[in-house]
Amino acid sequence: MTRDAKEIEARIRGSFARQTIMTTLGAEIAAVRAGEVEIVLPFSPGILQQHEFIHAGAIATIADTACGYAALTMMPREAAVLTTEFKINLLAPAKGERLRAIGRVVRAGKKLVITLGDVFAEDGAARKQVALITATMMVVDTGTGLRD
Amino acid sequence: MTRDAKEIEARIRGSFARQTIMTTLGAEIAAVRAGEVEIVLPFSPGILQQHEFIHAGAIATIADTACGYAALTMMPREAAVLTTEFKINLLAPAKGERLRAIGRVVRAGKKLVITLGDVFAEDGAARKQVALITATMMVVDTGTGLRD
Amino acid sequence: MTRDAKEIEARIRGSFARQTIMTTLGAEIAAVRAGEVEIVLPFSPGILQQHEFIHAGAIATIADTACGYAALTMMPREAAVLTTEFKINLLAPAKGERLRAIGRVVRAGKKLVITLGDVFAEDGAARKQVALITATMMVVDTGTGLRD
Amino acid sequence: MTRDAKEIEARIRGSFARQTIMTTLGAEIAAVRAGEVEIVLPFSPGILQQHEFIHAGAIATIADTACGYAALTMMPREAAVLTTEFKINLLAPAKGERLRAIGRVVRAGKKLVITLGDVFAEDGAARKQVALITATMMVVDTGTGLRD
Repeated sequence: MTRDAKEIEARIRGSFARQTIMTTLGAEIAAVRAGEVEIVLPFSPGILQQHEFIHAGAIATIADTACGYAALTMMPREAAVLTTEFKINLLAPAKGERLRAIGRVVRAGKKLVITLGDVFAEDGAARKQVALITATMMVVDTGTGLRD
Repeated sequence: MTRDAKEIEARIRGSFARQTIMTTLGAEIAAVRAGEVEIVLPFSPGILQQHEFIHAGAIATIADTACGYAALTMMPREAAVLTTEFKINLLAPAKGERLRAIGRVVRAGKKLVITLGDVFAEDGAARKQVALITATMMVVDTGTGLRD
Repeated sequence: MTRDAKEIEARIRGSFARQTIMTTLGAEIAAVRAGEVEIVLPFSPGILQQHEFIHAGAIATIADTACGYAALTMMPREAAVLTTEFKINLLAPAKGERLRAIGRVVRAGKKLVITLGDVFAEDGAARKQVALITATMMVVDTGTGLRD
Repeated sequence: MTRDAKEIEARIRGSFARQTIMTTLGAEIAAVRAGEVEIVLPFSPGILQQHEFIHAGAIATIADTACGYAALTMMPREAAVLTTEFKINLLAPAKGERLRAIGRVVRAGKKLVITLGDVFAEDGAARKQVALITATMMVVDTGTGLRD
């Protein structure tokens, strides 16, 4: 890992640690690569919908966040990102031991970064896609007071 | 309130009470009308993103749920709904005393119900729209074992 | 109509006239108001899908354009807009004498304008909603060489 | 090519030929594979927006159609599909000799088929992605009178 890659990962992990909803839901960063971030959300009894599957809102939370941090890996120090919109397709009920959201950058422009993400339910060795997200991140100047 | 309206509200509130993520986030149902449901989410320290605004995932959670229950108000006893997709536009940072998500049915078909929702941040008497959602709900037969 | 309103309408109509696809499909501007634009598309045999309804792509074309021009009504002379994304829900088959797309601004920010639009099929006095669109417009500086 | 593959391709090409908007815009089917369809749209002067790029509506038209036919490749004889919603992100101006939309099935359910598509601008040997689409197709019974 180069020094840059270390700095980028530290930046992402530092920002993630300040997202209190991640602690509340139990989500963790599993991997940070250039243009790609993975977040894992273990199944737990407090994040469910009425059929005892993981709530679509929790799926969207980790999918949006994986996409946002994937975009942030490509930003210079003086820029950060904010989600401006996302769309999520729910493909199957979210059940199993954990969810894994993988966000990737499709195109990084000067003003907007377009991202794509997949969310999988994992159960032992089995893995099934449960959601597909596309999200647009707006590039913001951290000089305006917005931290990562 | 007619007996039907009471039954519908009881159905929605019963289902909502089984969504454990709502208790975890602190969300509550504020109103149930035919084709329209309101959910309130008070600001609290455990639902934030890194800039200390309410996380987009929490906004999406209550917006999707308001839309889903708006659709459920129009379903007969033997049918329920599942979100198949939603898109959310984030219009402004979510700060204030509480969020209010209002979901409404745009069109109720036999197989799909299309909904539209607004999310507002409220602070004293002030109210500002922070998100706009469109969501598609799939109609499912409760006879297949899916409860509301 | 104030002089400003006249200038804005002239700007929109001038830009629309340069969109050759509008002539190809047969679409026309029906109304320009501050933050709201209407486009009409008469039924014609060359814009159909395989069931002889108006193609979803033609619906999307006028819906996106109505939203884009609604945004443009709120731009100063030195700024224009480009669509960065839109989502469209198709509510019913598009049949009848004509379609009418109405785009409206939900929130005009400095960098992005969020819009919402409805598309109706009209047949004599009858009117039925056939689509719902949300679209994000990126504000661009016309000084960069982009005309309206 | 197996007999099944031939039948599927014939079904797609027959349906496409009945979409009059495709002739109007100048689009053609470039490839049909199981779960994947390609459509090509040559640059032409009648499909442009005001900056003389190909209009987002034309991009959406071929992207939606590529996704719809990708879904149709997986349908039995007695079922067809209708687009219920799509979202498109526009990544770059659509200029060049032609556009190529590639639609793929992500998940084929009994009631809904979720698809993902990319649109590229091609200019000589160069190829650049200009759009990303996700679309939901509703499965319909052709016995109800809807042809492919």
